[in-house]
Amino acid sequence: MKTTINTPSKTYDIIIDKLPKLNFDRKVAVITNHKIAGLHINYLTNNLSAKELHIITLPDGEEYKNWQNIEFILDRLFDAKFDRNSLLIAFGGGVVGDMTGFAASIFLRGVDFIQIPTTLLAMVDSSVGGKTGINNKYGKNLIGSFYQPNAVYIDTHFLSTLPKREFAAGMAEIIKMAVMFDKDFFEKIKNNSISLEEMIKRAVELKADVVNQDEKEKGIRSVLNYGHTFGHVIENLTNYKTFLHGEAVAIGMVMANELSKILGYLSENEAEEIKQVLKKNNLPIDFKIENIEEFYNHFFLDKKTSNNKIKFIIPEKIGKYKIIDDIDKNIILKVLKKFEK
Amino acid sequence: MKTTINTPSKTYDIIIDKLPKLNFDRKVAVITNHKIAGLHINYLTNNLSAKELHIITLPDGEEYKNWQNIEFILDRLFDAKFDRNSLLIAFGGGVVGDMTGFAASIFLRGVDFIQIPTTLLAMVDSSVGGKTGINNKYGKNLIGSFYQPNAVYIDTHFLSTLPKREFAAGMAEIIKMAVMFDKDFFEKIKNNSISLEEMIKRAVELKADVVNQDEKEKGIRSVLNYGHTFGHVIENLTNYKTFLHGEAVAIGMVMANELSKILGYLSENEAEEIKQVLKKNNLPIDFKIENIEEFYNHFFLDKKTSNNKIKFIIPEKIGKYKIIDDIDKNIILKVLKKFEK
Repeated sequence: MKTTINTPSKTYDIIIDKLPKLNFDRKVAVITNHKIAGLHINYLTNNLSAKELHIITLPDGEEYKNWQNIEFILDRLFDAKFDRNSLLIAFGGGVVGDMTGFAASIFLRGVDFIQIPTTLLAMVDSSVGGKTGINNKYGKNLIGSFYQPNAVYIDTHFLSTLPKREFAAGMAEIIKMAVMFDKDFFEKIKNNSISLEEMIKRAVELKADVVNQDEKEKGIRSVLNYGHTFGHVIENLTNYKTFLHGEAVAIGMVMANELSKILGYLSENEAEEIKQVLKKNNLPIDFKIENIEEFYNHFFLDKKTSNNKIKFIIPEKIGKYKIIDDIDKNIILKVLKKFEK
Repeated sequence: MKTTINTPSKTYDIIIDKLPKLNFDRKVAVITNHKIAGLHINYLTNNLSAKELHIITLPDGEEYKNWQNIEFILDRLFDAKFDRNSLLIAFGGGVVGDMTGFAASIFLRGVDFIQIPTTLLAMVDSSVGGKTGINNKYGKNLIGSFYQPNAVYIDTHFLSTLPKREFAAGMAEIIKMAVMFDKDFFEKIKNNSISLEEMIKRAVELKADVVNQDEKEKGIRSVLNYGHTFGHVIENLTNYKTFLHGEAVAIGMVMANELSKILGYLSENEAEEIKQVLKKNNLPIDFKIENIEEFYNHFFLDKKTSNNKIKFIIPEKIGKYKIIDDIDKNIILKVLKKFEK
C-alpha cells in the first residue's frame, strides 16, 4: 500500500508494507536511539546496504530533543565527511524523526532523508508532513523547519515491541483524523472492523490530503490540531510528565467536544460515542483542572496562538471539522468549568 | 529599479532605490551589528514603523557567525513573544544577512524576513538568492538553509561609509558575473561607462536569473562559483585573515582563467583584460603558493566537492561560462605551478 505526498517543495511516497531491501550508492547515516537500536537495528541493517553505513545513536527521550544533540548528529556527519549527496535515515519514534529531519534540513543547507518510524504515533503523524524541530527552554518544537523526507517506510513489524500506552497514544491521532474527516472510518474503528495496516493507511491518507493542501500550516493544516489546543495546556501544566502526547490529545478532544456541544454543534450522543472509542482504546478521557484562569492563560503560550487569538478546532459532527477563533473567554471558561477539580 | 526573484519556494522583489517608508502592522526585529547600528540605525528607523520594533545587535565580524549568536537572536525573539506573524529585518553585510536568514528559517519553523544590505558584497551577492548559514569548527557556511527573504531593499546610501577594501571586494563579485554571463556588461565596467546603481542592478539581475533556474544549487547555480573553488583554498590557507572573501575570489578568478587558457579556451588577451579590470578595481591578482600539493588537497575540504570530483567554473570566453569536472590532477598542478613561490 502506498500514499503520495505532493507539496510544492517535494513529492514522495509513504509505503505501508514490510520494509523492502534498500540499497544506496552513497553514504548513509541511520539516526536512532539506544532503545530502538537494541530492539530492531538488525532487522533494519538486514534490509539496508550503502556505500558507507554509519549508525548514530542518541539517548532515548524527549528531554534529549535539543540543540546539543543536533550538534552531536552534525558533528558525526562532518567527521565522517558526509557531503550533499549523502542520506540520513530517521529510525525511531517522533523524537528521532523530528531531530533527524531538522539535522537533514540544515546540514550543508539540506540533504536527503528518509523516515522509518517505529512507533504508531510516528507512523500516522510525525513522520508524515515534514515538520521537524527541537525543544528549548521556551517550549516544545519552537525551533525547526518544514522539510519533507524523500520517502517514508511504515512497517508494522516494529509495533510488536511498542508498549501498550504508546500504542494507545498513536490511536489518539488516528481517532482524531477519523472524527475530523471521515465518519465511515470512525465507524470502522468503533466496530473494530478494520485492520491495523488499513487503519494506518487511512490515517496517513487523510493527513497527506491536508499536507498537500497546506504544507506550511498557513491555513487548513491547523485542523490537525483538534484536541491539541487543550492538550498542549494539559501537557504544560503537568510538566509533560503525567501524560504521553497522544493521551493529552485524547483528553483535549473530549474538551474540544464539550466546546462544540456548548456552541450547538456536536450532539451529546456523538460526544459520548467519541469518548467511548477513546476509552476503549486505552486512552484517558478526563483531567481535573486546579485553576481554570491559569489553564486559560496557558493558551497564549502556544506558538500557534498568533495575535492573541486562540484558534480551536472542533467537530461540527463526527467526520466534519470546524475552525473557531475569536471566541468569547466566558464560553471557554464554561467548558473548563466542566473539568474543574 | 527592481528585479524579481521567482523560485519554487517564493517570489519577491529586489528594489534598488532610496529606502522607501516601511510600515508594518506586526512585531519587527531589526538584526544588525554594533558598527552598522552606530552608523546607520537612524536612517533606517526614520523610514521604518512597526507595531513593536526591537533592535537586536550582534558583535561585528565573521567570527561571530555561529550557533551561539543564532541562539542569542532566537532567545531575544522568544523573550519578546514574537509569533509566526512577526518579521525579521537583516540590516548589515553578509554575516548579518546569513544569520538573520537562518534564524528566520528556523524560528517557529519559519517566519518572514527582509534583507537591507549595507555592503556592496551583500547587495550584489549574499542578500540575493536565499542562502543562509553559519560557520562551525569544520568550516564556513556548513550549517544553514535555503530560505528566501520576502523582499530585498538595496539603497546605495549605506555605501558612503564602506571601507575601500570592502567596496573592492563587492566589485569582485560584480566582475565575476560580467565575465560569466555578459560581455557587454564587462565592457561597461572596463570603460567605466556604467553608474553604481546600474552596475548593482545588472549584477543582481544576472544572479536572479541563475537562482530562478536553480534555487537549491543542484546544477547551474554552481556557475556562481567562478573564482570560488580556488578562492576558498586561498582563504583557508591564510586562515581567512589575509584576504577579504571578494579579494580571494579575485585571485581565484585569475587562477581559473589560467586553467581556461591551458585547456585552450580563454585567450591570453582576454585573461589579461580581466586581470586589469580586477586590478583597476583595487583587487589583488596574485598569490604565492607555498606548496602546490597541499593547495590541491584543500579542494577536497570544500562542501561543494561531492564524490571526490572537483568542479571548476571557467570562462570559455568573456561573457560565457563553462563547467569542468573530472579534470586531470596534473593539469590543475600545472595551473598551480604558475603561482608557486
